[in-house]
Amino acid sequence: MNSKDSHDIPPDHPRYESLKLRAKVVDAYKSGVLADSGLIAYGRGEAFDYLLGEETSSVAKKAIETAAATLLLAENPVISVNGNTAALVPEKVVELASTLDAKIEINLFYRTPERVQAIKKVLNDAGAAEVLGDEDDPKHITGLESPRSRVSREGIYRADVVLVPLEDGDRAQALVSNGKKVVTVDLNPLSRTAKTATVTIVDNLVRVMPQLIQEVKRLQLMGTSTLQDIVDGFDNQQNLQDSLKLMLESLS
Amino acid sequence: MNSKDSHDIPPDHPRYESLKLRAKVVDAYKSGVLADSGLIAYGRGEAFDYLLGEETSSVAKKAIETAAATLLLAENPVISVNGNTAALVPEKVVELASTLDAKIEINLFYRTPERVQAIKKVLNDAGAAEVLGDEDDPKHITGLESPRSRVSREGIYRADVVLVPLEDGDRAQALVSNGKKVVTVDLNPLSRTAKTATVTIVDNLVRVMPQLIQEVKRLQLMGTSTLQDIVDGFDNQQNLQDSLKLMLESLS
Repeated sequence: MNSKDSHDIPPDHPRYESLKLRAKVVDAYKSGVLADSGLIAYGRGEAFDYLLGEETSSVAKKAIETAAATLLLAENPVISVNGNTAALVPEKVVELASTLDAKIEINLFYRTPERVQAIKKVLNDAGAAEVLGDEDDPKHITGLESPRSRVSREGIYRADVVLVPLEDGDRAQALVSNGKKVVTVDLNPLSRTAKTATVTIVDNLVRVMPQLIQEVKRLQLMGTSTLQDIVDGFDNQQNLQDSLKLMLESLS
Repeated sequence: MNSKDSHDIPPDHPRYESLKLRAKVVDAYKSGVLADSGLIAYGRGEAFDYLLGEETSSVAKKAIETAAATLLLAENPVISVNGNTAALVPEKVVELASTLDAKIEINLFYRTPERVQAIKKVLNDAGAAEVLGDEDDPKHITGLESPRSRVSREGIYRADVVLVPLEDGDRAQALVSNGKKVVTVDLNPLSRTAKTATVTIVDNLVRVMPQLIQEVKRLQLMGTSTLQDIVDGFDNQQNLQDSLKLMLESLS
């Protein structure tokens, strides 16, 4: 019933680029990749990105470097993919997983078999050879009610580091409580996810992924102790404060 | 394809109330009342409302009082209704229009005949006797490309004051350029609409409407000079600065 609306964008509209990206998200919604809540969450992200001036700050760059080092130090890194991540950066997820030799796992807040399959198709089309998360014998992590606690035996269940962009606060908390290091991308530095994660990148996922891949490639040449120094020199709460300060400056 | 997702809300989720309101917006999307962009815009609003602490500030209350006085001083007040307004507060629109003896006009950014009729039905179901905006012989205001410039001959075209909640910046600008006083409700104090309008209420429309109706009823008992004093004593740019200050304080 709403088809084509978002594509009918007047080219002289001052927010043309932003509206075009939005159209991509709407397409994902219509193809069943994105849940209702995902479309609304995208809008929340837009507002916070606006406060960031829609660019990657030096503060975010520091978090990206630390995220890359954390992922490189992992024994079993997993990239957790939800609807928004699949809608926005499927090729980058596949490229990052391949660069890191990480697993890709679909993990949804509003889980339906149809959405899992729609996202799996998007990831396969983007070049993913293996996608976890639709097994018949999932494991469960503690601290969440049943449908949301499900994780893949070969994926998040045994992972030591999980990259979970755009995650719900409850689940970020549960992952940490289950002993995982959580790397997240969240435009809201005050969200529970942002505060809970081990490394929080306060930036737009569309801008983060290419830079994260670049950082992983650069740091792959470094030794373990260099990577550990990067991780040890990073203070997530301080980084969140610094991101907040940038937003405050943009507002005033 | 996404049906019922947003209704499947865990009651113990910390954002339960917010998720329930969101479900209402999603229903409006599915019934064709709301465009894609409307769902995303709702998410942006959520983020700014979060920064406001999800309550009506004393700063917003001052803007609501001035909005009421401005509407009461109007010769031909019109309430412009888009998809989000119809989704969130249809009964309140009808009540305010009846209290003010104002016209109701449907005015959409992404206009389709189907959406106009869906919104008309919502307003009629909420008790509206007359709804403008679907005439075969519309007029056009200057400064916008054709489909977006359309207004009703008996409505916005001859209005001196237009209440346009959640308006696009281009159209708010065009209304002002066409000599209308614009009263808007916008959670982003930095938006072009917020800066352009004559009176901007920085608050959630769901909270604003009952208070605006209450203010109109209270001020109806006052004389014209009292109303004019209220309007003259209000500085919209200062009020926006004050709203911004509240958000800054909540962030820091």
